[in-house]
Order: sequence, then structure tokens, then C-alpha cells
Amino acid sequence: MISFQSDYICGAHPKILQRLMETNMEPMAGYGDDSYTKSAKEKIQKACGADVTVEFLTGGTQTNMIVIATMLKDYEGVVAAATGHINAHEAGAVEYTGNKVLPLPQQNGKINASDLKALLADFYADDNHEHMVFPGLVYISHPTEYGTLYTKQELTDLSAICKSYEIPLFVDGARLGYGLMSRQTDVTLQDLVKLCDVFYIGGTKVGALCGEAIVFTHDNCPKHFLNSYKKRGALLAKGRLLGLQFDTLFTDDLYFEISKHAIDMAEKLKDILKKYSCQFFLDSPTNQQFIVLENHKLKKLQEKVAVGFWEKYDESHTVIRLATSWSTLESDLHGLDAALKEIYEG
Amino acid sequence: MISFQSDYICGAHPKILQRLMETNMEPMAGYGDDSYTKSAKEKIQKACGADVTVEFLTGGTQTNMIVIATMLKDYEGVVAAATGHINAHEAGAVEYTGNKVLPLPQQNGKINASDLKALLADFYADDNHEHMVFPGLVYISHPTEYGTLYTKQELTDLSAICKSYEIPLFVDGARLGYGLMSRQTDVTLQDLVKLCDVFYIGGTKVGALCGEAIVFTHDNCPKHFLNSYKKRGALLAKGRLLGLQFDTLFTDDLYFEISKHAIDMAEKLKDILKKYSCQFFLDSPTNQQFIVLENHKLKKLQEKVAVGFWEKYDESHTVIRLATSWSTLESDLHGLDAALKEIYEG
Amino acid sequence: MISFQSDYICGAHPKILQRLMETNMEPMAGYGDDSYTKSAKEKIQKACGADVTVEFLTGGTQTNMIVIATMLKDYEGVVAAATGHINAHEAGAVEYTGNKVLPLPQQNGKINASDLKALLADFYADDNHEHMVFPGLVYISHPTEYGTLYTKQELTDLSAICKSYEIPLFVDGARLGYGLMSRQTDVTLQDLVKLCDVFYIGGTKVGALCGEAIVFTHDNCPKHFLNSYKKRGALLAKGRLLGLQFDTLFTDDLYFEISKHAIDMAEKLKDILKKYSCQFFLDSPTNQQFIVLENHKLKKLQEKVAVGFWEKYDESHTVIRLATSWSTLESDLHGLDAALKEIYEG
Amino acid sequence: MISFQSDYICGAHPKILQRLMETNMEPMAGYGDDSYTKSAKEKIQKACGADVTVEFLTGGTQTNMIVIATMLKDYEGVVAAATGHINAHEAGAVEYTGNKVLPLPQQNGKINASDLKALLADFYADDNHEHMVFPGLVYISHPTEYGTLYTKQELTDLSAICKSYEIPLFVDGARLGYGLMSRQTDVTLQDLVKLCDVFYIGGTKVGALCGEAIVFTHDNCPKHFLNSYKKRGALLAKGRLLGLQFDTLFTDDLYFEISKHAIDMAEKLKDILKKYSCQFFLDSPTNQQFIVLENHKLKKLQEKVAVGFWEKYDESHTVIRLATSWSTLESDLHGLDAALKEIYEG
Repeated sequence: MISFQSDYICGAHPKILQRLMETNMEPMAGYGDDSYTKSAKEKIQKACGADVTVEFLTGGTQTNMIVIATMLKDYEGVVAAATGHINAHEAGAVEYTGNKVLPLPQQNGKINASDLKALLADFYADDNHEHMVFPGLVYISHPTEYGTLYTKQELTDLSAICKSYEIPLFVDGARLGYGLMSRQTDVTLQDLVKLCDVFYIGGTKVGALCGEAIVFTHDNCPKHFLNSYKKRGALLAKGRLLGLQFDTLFTDDLYFEISKHAIDMAEKLKDILKKYSCQFFLDSPTNQQFIVLENHKLKKLQEKVAVGFWEKYDESHTVIRLATSWSTLESDLHGLDAALKEIYEG
Repeated sequence: MISFQSDYICGAHPKILQRLMETNMEPMAGYGDDSYTKSAKEKIQKACGADVTVEFLTGGTQTNMIVIATMLKDYEGVVAAATGHINAHEAGAVEYTGNKVLPLPQQNGKINASDLKALLADFYADDNHEHMVFPGLVYISHPTEYGTLYTKQELTDLSAICKSYEIPLFVDGARLGYGLMSRQTDVTLQDLVKLCDVFYIGGTKVGALCGEAIVFTHDNCPKHFLNSYKKRGALLAKGRLLGLQFDTLFTDDLYFEISKHAIDMAEKLKDILKKYSCQFFLDSPTNQQFIVLENHKLKKLQEKVAVGFWEKYDESHTVIRLATSWSTLESDLHGLDAALKEIYEG
Repeated sequence: MISFQSDYICGAHPKILQRLMETNMEPMAGYGDDSYTKSAKEKIQKACGADVTVEFLTGGTQTNMIVIATMLKDYEGVVAAATGHINAHEAGAVEYTGNKVLPLPQQNGKINASDLKALLADFYADDNHEHMVFPGLVYISHPTEYGTLYTKQELTDLSAICKSYEIPLFVDGARLGYGLMSRQTDVTLQDLVKLCDVFYIGGTKVGALCGEAIVFTHDNCPKHFLNSYKKRGALLAKGRLLGLQFDTLFTDDLYFEISKHAIDMAEKLKDILKKYSCQFFLDSPTNQQFIVLENHKLKKLQEKVAVGFWEKYDESHTVIRLATSWSTLESDLHGLDAALKEIYEG
Repeated sequence: MISFQSDYICGAHPKILQRLMETNMEPMAGYGDDSYTKSAKEKIQKACGADVTVEFLTGGTQTNMIVIATMLKDYEGVVAAATGHINAHEAGAVEYTGNKVLPLPQQNGKINASDLKALLADFYADDNHEHMVFPGLVYISHPTEYGTLYTKQELTDLSAICKSYEIPLFVDGARLGYGLMSRQTDVTLQDLVKLCDVFYIGGTKVGALCGEAIVFTHDNCPKHFLNSYKKRGALLAKGRLLGLQFDTLFTDDLYFEISKHAIDMAEKLKDILKKYSCQFFLDSPTNQQFIVLENHKLKKLQEKVAVGFWEKYDESHTVIRLATSWSTLESDLHGLDAALKEIYEG
């Protein structure tokens, strides 16, 4: 069956599998102390154009909880959009590590500098703030959970407020490739290096079997960080699995190429959806598209195409997500087109 | 270079990689809700010969901390050998989840029924025991960290005490295959199902890229267990990676075959070591062999063969580990033999 | 200086100090295993008119975090008003124990049954709810942080929804006495026993030096609860300090009498505030009164009377709290009256 | 009944109760922001003869867990005697906060410098130490759980090793007064200020209703420490209760006087025990005395005198504890003498 259900429906980009095959029988040291992991780190440093520190973990929730837990001080919590993945869809992983998420209002998944500034000013204006959780880190996702993107100006403004309060800015880049390759962005990887304190380059949703590359931008990797993620159950014995995948993704710009492919597919997807006058739930410039569909049409569509349930819109409509990825084929788009044609014109 | 450094020096068994290739472009649901994961669970149930519950996680420390944290009650801790992996080499992962390890004396990595019984009796005899951590789970590893194995009688005795105190018995099987295929064991997979409450079948060290299969033997999988491991950062988006690997390992007895190969290689390794009258640190019937080596000989050996440092023996000797695995070749053994010949006779 | 700053500005009701003196040199067992603690438990059971389980802790935040941590299951969090004390003013204590607060909208500090019902229905309607924190306990405060009270009907409605979802209802009664003695309430102590699963009778703010009495209403006290609060640092060696105070408070209805006194004082306080046409921030039927004051008047007032800063209202106004208690004297009211007279008429 | 069961069998020193009475109706700010708390801090600073930081908490377990949790870094655990209170009798409070206790061998409750040095050297010699818990704090109790004391030289040696590894030294002084007033000690309060990084002056067991005074000796109080103990449920609304008690204890050397009284009583107690040739379990120079008693004699003794059960010695003997305190009377000693006379000579 054709599937636009998510950007993690397939395995890994074929080049990754190929290199796993080629290097399979080479004996290597464990726990990330192998040559491919080292090479991957260097390639990411080069792509970032800066002497950043790079570490690899397995998945997004794991990365969020570990970065947040190791960067917060005892009296601090993390500020995030109420709709942020850490606040809504990670089963309370941040709280499990003892830390509070301090929610901010959001617009299409994004927070803005003035709301952040107000939260910080109000906190310090409150006589009782020693009895409250100090805002100690700002978490944003780029692209957001709704596929939207921050502009360079918006990031610059958030970054400036963070700096003025000496609070690190953390960017969840689980889908970073799709953000960087969007046709409607002015934000580059180098901008992220400059504007935020730590971010990650998502692999799981951008061509890898699993894996996220954390980038600490200002010589601010927590001391003995390996021990910190070992004790949170996140250190792989065969660290080569992560190293080799990122080494491949950052060879000959593969990460960017496959992200661009997903964006090209998404733009074509949007054209198809527009052809049938589908109602967009919001305007997304990346690989995730959200539309509002009548329930009976959705039922019919699902006979041919797997899509992601997002949320109930009203009694007779549902918001669904269609995601493209590095693995989306032209034939998938044709299949979707045909299925919609039958529903709308059939 | 030849390596006996560990049993996770290579990638995955080639059949696993082959199936990753074959299934790579099949779109599937995420988070373990795919057909290969289902199939793997069924095959493991069949191998166990019982209606057990099977769940997949990524690595050993992660599995230990999550099983322990979800099975302990608020007032309980976990009993383990002082040398147990959870007490010594997991960076305090169990404590990080809020739980205490209650150490027992050990002999070659094993605890025994009488020490366990004494600990439990003493605990309940103490008037102050409401101020102490209740023993709430017993953790053993099989094979142990020293490669040793429990006999069926020893497991039966431990199990009986656990049952009489209504305390679950948990077996860390990170290297379970090598234990089951040892020439000196009378313990079968079915015995484990009967004698313990939860155990895991290690993949990472027995042919997989990563992955451990947890087996809850008595309809005792914690409620909403997926949520519990999601919130501890252990849920993979591409659950197929774990499912497919275990599906492969439990097709045509591959798991047992490759484990047997490692044992055959270990027996040959022991013969070579005996040929040079190497001093064994202890008698191990599995894939890990420990010998005491003069430091100058070790230095020479390491020019040709990678081995595992274990611990300082005295000022002039070191305990080293040589591990075989599914990936060990006859040519590795020849290389080791040659290297030792040069050292001892050269 | 006259003070209406809070309801914990003075020591303890004189009868408590008197009994501390009288019993001071009696040797007793520690850790709550003394006769006064037993007697206090019996008296509270009698006042509740039911075979409830009673336990004593030292303060409100401690009680909230321990009750919540021991009643939640691994996959659950606690629902509370966004303004609830646990969400706003306890320094993240609930999160520190690994649990998420799931905020609900509030009106004057109260949540309502329809919002609660919607949250629960939405949660279970979401396909992704296994990735989210399960609502596992409902926390309300009575009186709320704004001094407001639930009606018996409102409590009955919340209770019914909780029951239908098998979720316990927890009432923070840090100021319970002032709620029960309000002239505008139809809720009795016996109603709480029937309608909620656990609540506490606040001592710290109602005449004790420290201490809260937790009441588990349905034979639902967590097993080995003493161990659970010992391990959270909340077990006093001299448990008699808590036992004796509650024994005194529940002798001859002292708890209710002194609470009534505070309410009488609050009603007179309201009359005085109305005399000067002060703007009430909201209508509170208990011992805490909130008014909006021009900043320059506040400054003048504070020369004579200590009040509680609550929050900034706008650039030129501030919300302040005036609290009466068991210790408020008629002369305090006269002093306030005189101070206001000078400000408003002087 | 006469009681030597513990040093917390009575209420508080009468002078404390008297001052609670005298100041009861003075309105004061909450949360330790009152004049008596300030005064108490100053008096303790003066007694310490140094510009130390002083904070008050309620009990010993609470103090241990909070000091340890706030002083350890993410990758560290706390070294303690296997018999240390934090390792044996605090219900796993340290582990509950996510931290491991690293046990050291002990002699009569004490650790020694050479064992500590060996533990540290071995840790850093282990190639795998990044997978282990770093020793990050050393905990000792003075007096120990067995009533024994470190000499100045022993403390100096432990302190030197801690300094050389940059690990803070933490002294649990739950019974500090009895240690400082022992006839066999050369350690002063000023020595502790010099030799350790943080310690506490126990109140609960030395004359207070509750309360421990933490002393940070080197400008090393964790930032926003109040927030850290608020979030662990340890901040009292009526902070005056702790402040006033320590203000009284440190007025006119009351703390030292009453501690000396307990020591004088303990010396007389020892004389009585020797008179009947009781077998001492160990030699304790402080207020806790441990003897080995035949079970049938113990049974008889307990008809007249309450004592503390310590542990089973063998089938027919028990180790019991007899503790003196600020509240022990000459008549208690006479009563014990008479009871023993009846048992041994009757």
C-alpha cells in the first residue's frame, strides 16, 4: 500500500545499508570509540563550519530528555511551546528526569520572542520566584511539530533574549534536513551554530535507521557526557551503527540531497492537494502537510493510502498528516492523485 | 588487526543485514507496530514453548534499568551480586531511576541461594526494616560478567527462595545464547521460562546491531509498558529495526547456531591458551575467557591482537579478557596462536 | 507591626504550646509510634465519621509531592488547575519526583467537571495516547489558592467523573479549616470523606507550628507508606511533635473553633474594606481576601500594616492579599481600619 | 518507664519551649525570612569562627539527601561506610534522588584514609571508569552510627585525600554535640570548619523538637539552595520554628552544655554497666553505648527499662543500645542500676 503516514515508514537510505554491509566484518572498538564515529564527527564539524562538539544518540525523545537533563541546573526548568514535542508527545520524559516544562503560547507550533520576554520578565518580577521553577533553557523545534519554520530574524530575536538572560537555546532538529532544504527558509546550518547553544541533526526521520547527532556549539558539552547518557541507558555498545550512518549522510551532501528530495515531493504533494481543493489545516513549508478531510472521504482514502491521523477537527472532519521523506517515490504521488481523483471526482 | 576484545566488535550477522536490505523499502507502521516485530514475538514465544510476553529494547543497560524500575514497588530495591553489571558498570543507571542496588557476596560472578536466604531473613528480622530498602527483585546474569553459568539446580534454588518471599527473579541474558550453547550447561531456554519471572535474550552481543528481547514469563508485563519505555527514551520510531533482527535470529535457529559457533571457537581458544600454559583467572564455560598475563607479554601481544583489559592483577600482571562471538574466524585463532608462540617460544 | 501578610505569621495556638510543655519530658517511641500520634489518628477518624487511614507529614508541598508520587502509576500524571499550588508555587516538586502536572483551565482557582471530562475524553480519543502522559489523579485545593470554595454539587460532579475513569480525587486542604467554617459553604468534612479518595487537613496554616494530616478515605493508603515518606526525607524522629499538635487540634473541636474565628475576622475585614470601597480582585468566602490597590496607597499602607504581595495588576495597581487566621485579633482589625482611614480620608 | 531507647525520646530542652512561648504571637515573615533565623545563623557563624553559610532543615535523612543531591554532579556518587546511615537506614533516600552510594569497608563505623585512597586510585586506574559512577563526595558521620569518633589526625588525612582529588568532604553531625563534648576527642567545631566542606549540627537528637543546621564552610552553598530544598518538600512555612530553636541552642553555649550533660551521664552509664561486667559490643566515647546481652536478661531488663534493639548477636544474645541525652536524669541511671542489680545479683 502507498504510505504518506510518516517520514519513518521505510528503513534507511540504501547508501547507508550498503556501507553497513561493506564495513560489517571490520573489528572495531565499542561505545563510539571507532573510526567511523570519529569521521562522522569531523564531517559534521566541517558542515557546521565551526569547532563544535558532536555526540550521537539513538532517538529524538532520548536526545531531548538527556540534553535537557544535563543542561538544566537544579532549580531550573525548560521553556517550550505548549504544543512542543517534549510537552505533549514524549510520555513525560522530561518530567521523568525531574524537570518541569514551562509552557508558552504558540502559533502554528512556534513561540515568539515577545512571549518569551514576557515570561522571563514576569518570572523575575514575582516576589515569590524562589518558590517557582526558574526558566533555565528554551526549547524550540525547527521544523516544528506542524512543519512550520522559524525565520532567521525570529531565531535571532529568540537568541538575543536567551543571551540577555544567560539561558541556553536548544533546537530540536528531528526533521532538520527538511527545514534546511525548504524553499521558504533563510536559515542555514551555520546560522543554527551561531544562534543556538545546542541543537540536533535528526537522522531517524531523515534517512537513517536510527540516530540523532547532537551539536554543542560553544564548547558547552556537559562534562563526562558519555557517562551521563550511559546512565540514562542511551549508550550503544556498537556505536559504529550511529557513527557510520552519519558518516554516510554527511558524505557528498547526502543528508541535504535526500532532504531536498523530500521537499520536492512535498511541493508536488501540495499541488495535488490543491488540485482537489483540499482544505489545508495550516501552511507548512516542509515535508509534513496537514489537511482537513471529511470523515467519509478519509475512510475511502485509507483504503488506498496510509496517512497519519492528527486530531479530530469537528464531528464530521479530521485533520490528517501526509508526510514525504527521502523515500517518497513519484509513483506514490501518482497513486495518491488517483485515489483522490476517485474520491473527489469519481 | 585480529581482535578478541569483545563480542561486539563486528556489525551484525550477514543474514540480518541481508533481510534489512530486502525489506528496506516496505512502508510500515512505526514504534514496533509492524509485521516483522509481530513475527519476531511469535517466534520467540514458540522457542520459549510458552505464552510469554515479548518486548524489544535497544541495549543491555537500558533494558536492566527499565525492567527494574517498572517491576519494583516504591519501597523496594534490587538484590544483585556486588560484581553484577547493574552494580558496577552501568554508570549508576538503576540508582538514576531512584532505586537502590542491594549487593550480595559473589563467587565468580554468581550469588547463591543461602546468601540470598540469609539476606532476606536478616532483613525481616531487623526491627528497623521499615527504615530500610525492601528487597523487591533479584537480579542475576547468566552467563555472568565472568562468563560463568548457574546450574539448573542453582537456578531452581534461587527461584524457590524468590517464590517463597514473593520476589520476582530477573535474569540478565545479554549473552544468553553463549550460555545456552555452552558444553557445560544443563539450563535450557524453557527452564528460564519456568524458573524466572523476566529475562532477556541478548541481541547486541549475539549477532545483532543492537537489541534485546525481554521475556515476561507469567503474564506479568507491566501495564502500558510501551509508555514506560517511551518516557525513558527507549522507544525507537523504526521499531522494525529490532523486530526484523530478532525475526531473523529466531528463524531456523540462527540465534542458537551462531552462539554454538562462538562456543566452539572458545573451546579452541582455551586449547590454545592451555598449550602455552597461560594462567586462567577462572574457569569459564562460555565465550569469555579470562587469563592473567605478565605485563610485558601483554604489551607484546597487543601489537598483534586486540584484547580486553579487565583489571590489574598485581604490579606485574594484568587480567585480560578474550571473547569469541558469532563473528570469530578460524583465522583469528591461528593468528592468536602465532602471536602467543612468538611471545612464549619466540 | 500589624500583619495580615499570611496565615502563618504566628507560632502555634497557645493550647498546643501548653501541651508540648506538659508532655515534654515523657519518654516516647520515635517515628510516630507514640501514644499521642495514635490518639490524634483516632480523633481524626472520629471527626471524619469513618474508618479512614491517617498519616502526618510536616508541610504542604511535602504532602502534595508524596501523596502524588505514591498514588500515581508509572505511566500517569496529575491533573490540576493551571494556577494550582503544585503547578505554580512548589518549585517543581511534583516534577522532581518524576511526574507531570497536566494543567486544566481554571476560574478563580477552580476547575470544573466539564473541562475535566473534556480532557479525559480527548486523551482517550487520541490515537497517540500511548505516547502521552495518562491522567491518573485529579488534584484540587479547597479552599483554592484564591480563597474560593467548591460547592458540594461541584465536588460531587468532579468525583463522579473521577470514579467513572477510575482516577482518584485528591484534595489539598492546606487551609481546610477555613473552608469548612466559611459562612458560604455546604461542604462538610464528612462530604470530603465520601467524595474524594485522599485529602489533607492542614495544620501549618491553621494553628500548628507545622504539620498536615493526610486522610486516605477508602482503605487506599499506599503499602509501606512510612517507608515511602522516610525515603523522601519526611519522617520526623520526634513524631510526637505532629501527633500531639493534631491531638490538641482535634480535642474539643479546637480546629473548627479557631477556623471559625478566622472566618469571623475575615468577614469583619471585608466590611472594613468595603467601607473604603476597596476593589475586590475576586469574591472569597474564606480567610484570604484579595484587593486591587493603587501603588501609592499600597506604599502608604505598608508603613503600618504588613500585607501579602500577590501580583502586579497594571502599571499603577497591585493585587494584595490580606489573610486572617486563628491568631488575628480585633485590635489588628482596628489598626487596619485606622490605617485605611488615613489613606482614604486622611 | 525509664528509657535509654534513643536520644530523641523527649521533647525539647525546656529553654526552647520557653522561647517558643515568649515569641509565639510575634508576627513574622515565613520561610526562614525572620529575625530569629537570622540571629541563629549569626550565632552559629560566631561559634564556627568563620564566615560560613548556614541553612536549616528539619531532619537528618532529609538533610543528607538534599546536601548530597545538590553537591553531586551528574556523573558522580557519594562514598560512604557500608554501615553509614545513608547506606543502611534511610530507606534509599540518596538513591531516590538518583544518586549511588559507593560503599567502603568500615571499622566500628569509620572509614579510613588508606581505603579511601585505594578506592579513588582504583577508580581512575580502571579503563572502564567512564562506565562507572565517579566518586564525587565523601560522607562520614561524626559521631558514627556506633558512637565512635574520628581523631583530628584521621579527619586531616581524609580531608587531604579529598582535597587532592577535588572531592568535597561531608560530615553528618546528627549527634555532633555529643561528639564535640566527648572526653576522648581532640576535634573542635573549628576543626570541622577547616577540614570539611559541609557538615551539619544536629538539633533533633541534641535538644530540639526537630532541626539540623547545615554549615557550608567554603562559600560553597549551592546556588538558589532554598529553591532546591523547597522542591524536595523541605521548606517550612514557619521557618521561625527552626531558627528560634537554634538561636536558643547557640545562646550561652546551651548546645555544648546539654551535650556535655549527656556525656557525663554516658560515663556514669558505662560505670554502671562495667559494675555488672556487661560485655561492651565496642568502645564508644559518646552518648550511645552498645552491649551484648543474653536474651533472657534482655527480656527481664525490658520490664523496667526501655532500650534500643540493635541487632541479633547470636542465637542467645542480642546487641542493644543505651543512649543518654540532654534529657537523661540521675534517677534514670539509678533505675537502670537497680534493674541490672536485680538481673545480675537478684
